[in-house]
Amino acid sequence: MTEPQPAAATGTEPETFSPMRWEGPGLRLLDQTRLPLEEVWMDCEIPEQVADAIRRLAVRGAPAIGVAAAYGLVLGIRTVRDPERLAGRFDEVSELLGSTRPTAVNLRWALERGRQVFLASAADGPEATTAALLAWARELHADDVRINRRMGAHGAALFAAGSRVLTHCNAGALATAGYGTALGVIQSAWEQGRVGQVWVDETRPLLQGARLTAWELKRLGIPFRLVTDNSAGALLSQGLVDGIVVGADRIAANGDTANKIGTYTVAVLAHRHKVPFYVAAPLSTIDRATPNGAAIPIEERKSLEVTEVFGTRVAPEDTQALNFAFDVTPAELITAIITEVGVLRAPYERSIAAAFGDS
Amino acid sequence: MTEPQPAAATGTEPETFSPMRWEGPGLRLLDQTRLPLEEVWMDCEIPEQVADAIRRLAVRGAPAIGVAAAYGLVLGIRTVRDPERLAGRFDEVSELLGSTRPTAVNLRWALERGRQVFLASAADGPEATTAALLAWARELHADDVRINRRMGAHGAALFAAGSRVLTHCNAGALATAGYGTALGVIQSAWEQGRVGQVWVDETRPLLQGARLTAWELKRLGIPFRLVTDNSAGALLSQGLVDGIVVGADRIAANGDTANKIGTYTVAVLAHRHKVPFYVAAPLSTIDRATPNGAAIPIEERKSLEVTEVFGTRVAPEDTQALNFAFDVTPAELITAIITEVGVLRAPYERSIAAAFGDS
Repeated sequence: MTEPQPAAATGTEPETFSPMRWEGPGLRLLDQTRLPLEEVWMDCEIPEQVADAIRRLAVRGAPAIGVAAAYGLVLGIRTVRDPERLAGRFDEVSELLGSTRPTAVNLRWALERGRQVFLASAADGPEATTAALLAWARELHADDVRINRRMGAHGAALFAAGSRVLTHCNAGALATAGYGTALGVIQSAWEQGRVGQVWVDETRPLLQGARLTAWELKRLGIPFRLVTDNSAGALLSQGLVDGIVVGADRIAANGDTANKIGTYTVAVLAHRHKVPFYVAAPLSTIDRATPNGAAIPIEERKSLEVTEVFGTRVAPEDTQALNFAFDVTPAELITAIITEVGVLRAPYERSIAAAFGDS
Repeated sequence: MTEPQPAAATGTEPETFSPMRWEGPGLRLLDQTRLPLEEVWMDCEIPEQVADAIRRLAVRGAPAIGVAAAYGLVLGIRTVRDPERLAGRFDEVSELLGSTRPTAVNLRWALERGRQVFLASAADGPEATTAALLAWARELHADDVRINRRMGAHGAALFAAGSRVLTHCNAGALATAGYGTALGVIQSAWEQGRVGQVWVDETRPLLQGARLTAWELKRLGIPFRLVTDNSAGALLSQGLVDGIVVGADRIAANGDTANKIGTYTVAVLAHRHKVPFYVAAPLSTIDRATPNGAAIPIEERKSLEVTEVFGTRVAPEDTQALNFAFDVTPAELITAIITEVGVLRAPYERSIAAAFGDS
């Protein structure tokens, strides 16, 4: 595993842990379904393996899915020798990757960017096109980390010294190409003495908080306590939370935000207790073609993720669960959206348009 | 296992499933920690076994704990032969049982009632006192079921035909001497066609919803879907919930209610979405000596209940969790409190006093 390195004195950016690497036979992905018990890296040599990894959440988190899909496009066309077949194969692979998960918009965003790169170089033949796409995917990877660091710097300033910050699900290095969105903000704030302790929502059903966020915070040496998702209300009503920061899977043009199921509940509680509720996400998570939260498709996953925990059945046989993967937090409950270009405030229609350079 | 019987035509009340029976060597308790995978009955012959069963949640739910403790008192004094030692032993056993769990007030209530029965008969010697206490405990057991049926009748009328009702944790037959409080209301409403479907919150950390409520609803043939605790917000915001009913571990004189951790969150969400939020509990759960929610002691349980699920670790090694067993829902969020003497409404100071016959 790549250990984080101290920033070199050469002016290069400090290294950060990434859940994916382009090396050896193709794309190496950390299998996040095995964390925290085992750190297993899987080699993806064909795009079908990447699609499968996204579908079963071996790689998850909106920005990470986007970058993994970019590498998936490279894997898809690098074996094509016949220039005539290049465009057809690209479409096929793009569709395969795009069909894996419906809510996270970074996936579609990355595939669309990839298509532009492909179209710009396709006339040069398979080899050149593959090289161009790979260079772009690597750049997307590096860019995501830079973007997250910028987000961290903008977001850290929002927290007073020693804040007790709650986060839901995992929006850390594992959910991105590195450094993280919400957890990047927490890390950045912690380095400035602005975070005293993190409350980690365990995040049922798949326990990304308990398994992944706790694993990251432990590696970073940031003090945390784990709580059940049921505990946020008690913590807030007892005055034990100073701020909340979460990631996002898709932000609509009006600021409504889809994120891991349970996020909406935390936002409602924060609103009642007048504790700031922040969303940290890159501009690539903002989907301006989606007018509001009602237009965001919400993935429904299988019942078994709820009725079994690590392979042990926890409900009577044949129990049917309803398993929405995400919920929508209306913009009115969001104190601010932290992006790489700055901290956006309501009215979000306007601040989002300005962030994209419209005004 | 005792199967529920159809109501006899003799005028006796219909039988109901009970998680405890006085028979054979003493008190038989269904070990609820093993449900739904196994139905194991344990024999308690000494009060230490009852105390242990309460502590490790083999028997749980405020009313059930009260009745189990009553039988525990019987087990404690039935072996005493020396009249001189009777009072000392009673105090010892009462203290042992009373120390098991701090929040549920029915425990203290039952022990106090037991003391009165003991004092009234202690002069007649050990054998007569044991007989008197046993008769009282059996009556308490039968009474709890009658009370729950009355609560069911009062509560059922609150629901319109085909309501989709959400419940948190388990307040069913398993949490009482039989029939249940919140789940008794649901059963009664369902028999009248007023409940179309139940949403079952799984209720982390110990999954009493997934393990116990689902098990009871399946036995009763009432349609249900299981959801993670994180899902209540999405269900409510999508208009999929018509009403909520939960049990209680202690209700203060002003109506503030301690119940399983996560209840407060559901109440806050219900309030936002203008869906009625009901508490179903017998008068023995109302502690008039506790002025408000801030005065209710909240049990903190061990970290391991959160960091392990059925013996599998779900967080990095040495992760510390904060594990409050209960939270407090302020009276202002409670639409009504369903009791055996009727449905109480705000202002609760007044309606509670009236229910106790003060006015």
